[in-house]
Amino acid sequence: MGGAREIDVAALAQRVLAGDRAALARAISLIESTSAAHFAAAERLLAEVLPRTGQAVRVGITGVPGAGKSTFIERLGLMLCERGTRVAVLAVDPSSGVSGGSILGDRTRMGRLAAHALAFIRPSPSGLSLGGVARRTREAGLVCEAAGFRVVLVETVGVGQSETVVADMVDCVLGLAVAGTGDELQGVKRGLLERVDVLAVNKADGENRAAAARAAAELAAALRVLRGGGESGSTPVLACSAATGEGVAEVWEQVERCVSAMRSDGRLAERRRGQLVAWMDALVQEQLAQMLASSNAAASSRERAIEQLRLGDLSPGQAAREVIEALTRELRASPS
Amino acid sequence: MGGAREIDVAALAQRVLAGDRAALARAISLIESTSAAHFAAAERLLAEVLPRTGQAVRVGITGVPGAGKSTFIERLGLMLCERGTRVAVLAVDPSSGVSGGSILGDRTRMGRLAAHALAFIRPSPSGLSLGGVARRTREAGLVCEAAGFRVVLVETVGVGQSETVVADMVDCVLGLAVAGTGDELQGVKRGLLERVDVLAVNKADGENRAAAARAAAELAAALRVLRGGGESGSTPVLACSAATGEGVAEVWEQVERCVSAMRSDGRLAERRRGQLVAWMDALVQEQLAQMLASSNAAASSRERAIEQLRLGDLSPGQAAREVIEALTRELRASPS
Repeated sequence: MGGAREIDVAALAQRVLAGDRAALARAISLIESTSAAHFAAAERLLAEVLPRTGQAVRVGITGVPGAGKSTFIERLGLMLCERGTRVAVLAVDPSSGVSGGSILGDRTRMGRLAAHALAFIRPSPSGLSLGGVARRTREAGLVCEAAGFRVVLVETVGVGQSETVVADMVDCVLGLAVAGTGDELQGVKRGLLERVDVLAVNKADGENRAAAARAAAELAAALRVLRGGGESGSTPVLACSAATGEGVAEVWEQVERCVSAMRSDGRLAERRRGQLVAWMDALVQEQLAQMLASSNAAASSRERAIEQLRLGDLSPGQAAREVIEALTRELRASPS
Repeated sequence: MGGAREIDVAALAQRVLAGDRAALARAISLIESTSAAHFAAAERLLAEVLPRTGQAVRVGITGVPGAGKSTFIERLGLMLCERGTRVAVLAVDPSSGVSGGSILGDRTRMGRLAAHALAFIRPSPSGLSLGGVARRTREAGLVCEAAGFRVVLVETVGVGQSETVVADMVDCVLGLAVAGTGDELQGVKRGLLERVDVLAVNKADGENRAAAARAAAELAAALRVLRGGGESGSTPVLACSAATGEGVAEVWEQVERCVSAMRSDGRLAERRRGQLVAWMDALVQEQLAQMLASSNAAASSRERAIEQLRLGDLSPGQAAREVIEALTRELRASPS
């Protein structure tokens, strides 16, 4: 990524809209950048492409580690590519900030899908807080839509708030579970069950097939209890095997059915509007943090507070209050 | 929790310092409260008890779901209680915000430890962001220390940033791994390996014993590669079984050895001072968010922005900028 002055945002946006993959990668790098100069350029880029978004199906894929998310996404992605659908795969993995992700890194994952001309795979941005990852993944997804991708799959690490964050940027959440690990559903969090629109018990193959079918029945029952509803509107629960491919098309059919139903009764448009508001709120938080980071008065107050903390003269609460007061004094004194 | 006016913070602090369990529970409820009035009382309470903290060993316990963290903590906690050590167990589980945690809730977990007179177990505060959970768990741990607990165990859900957050509030991180799930180390994130001070391969019992020993050897080798060091200063990796208790005392011995070494060469004091600064920074973020939440101008600007977002007249980035501008205008206009 070159200096901010060199970026011709309008030209880059045009190339993205024309489906240029190198431009797409470059646009996402611009969005992922943490430089303040790039921030403004990224915002202009998004404003350029936003009117050309909204045509893709956005699906979150979640499940505990070991549920087979990568294998499933590769299988599903290849199936969709073979049907001629352009598929983008993004990820939300805030833990990748530490060192670039899990031991099985993104480059070795999904090798066949990554090589397909109709697919675009982008690993989770790293070195950022969950909020930072969320903002950038959301925006990268929209840029992919503008570049003509018709399915955007967003993978989560599957535990903690990354699930919530992904649910807040997609149309439909597909949860992957597994059976047969001995303690059955221990890994399935109630939070997962409450947020999924479609649930698939993966690894339903070989001698694991019966256990998967049992787990699917148990999960369907658990979901009925949790949602308090009857059969109508209940969450579809299927068994599938990403390894053999069996059931994957059926799982996708349920995802498409779910999105179509939401589109026809207006819930999809409403959900997407709500997500825009949440996105704005996240940007407000990010800009507040930037305001603090660029305040000289807050920085020097913080330095003094750290000294006093070390000496035990101040509690962290008192120290924080002094930093905030320095920031607000500076804002009041500055010209409006 | 009664109204803020009714809380006699000094009396509550005295009862906490005297080791009164009901007062301890009440003090933690005060800390967990999201009411602005309670915030000030909680800060006074902490200022009262802070000088009486610092004597406990603070240990984070992490590992993927299914690694047996609860079973391990119960076994370890009972062992320490039997030695006459008072043990507090806290948790950081931001996903519990959705619905109160995993299917196997905290009440049914660790039943024997919970019933022990020398133990105190507190589930993760719920309904909060990760940052909010972190602040409250850190403060609850200090209140436990002030109440005379000499070991504070902080459990994480084991994936994502909750691990980082726990590492930033403890002296030593103990990682739990498991072998024999078929795909071996898939669940072990590199981030986990980089942050642990002691690593234990759990479930080393029955027919799983050999696989656990192999996994421990593999992990020890992986850690040597990751840290680039020789044998000296390498991370201890042990096999143990929380179910049978075998090896748990040895794991704890390594934790104590790690903390003693850090204490004698000054790293412990340095680490704890750094954590105070991180805590202050987190409180600054929290107070900034409160400033925004209590601004009338920002609230009405946000309402207008939401309307324009719905109509497509504004991008989320532009909308966020308008909210921030409304806040800073209000701050400038207000008396200092």
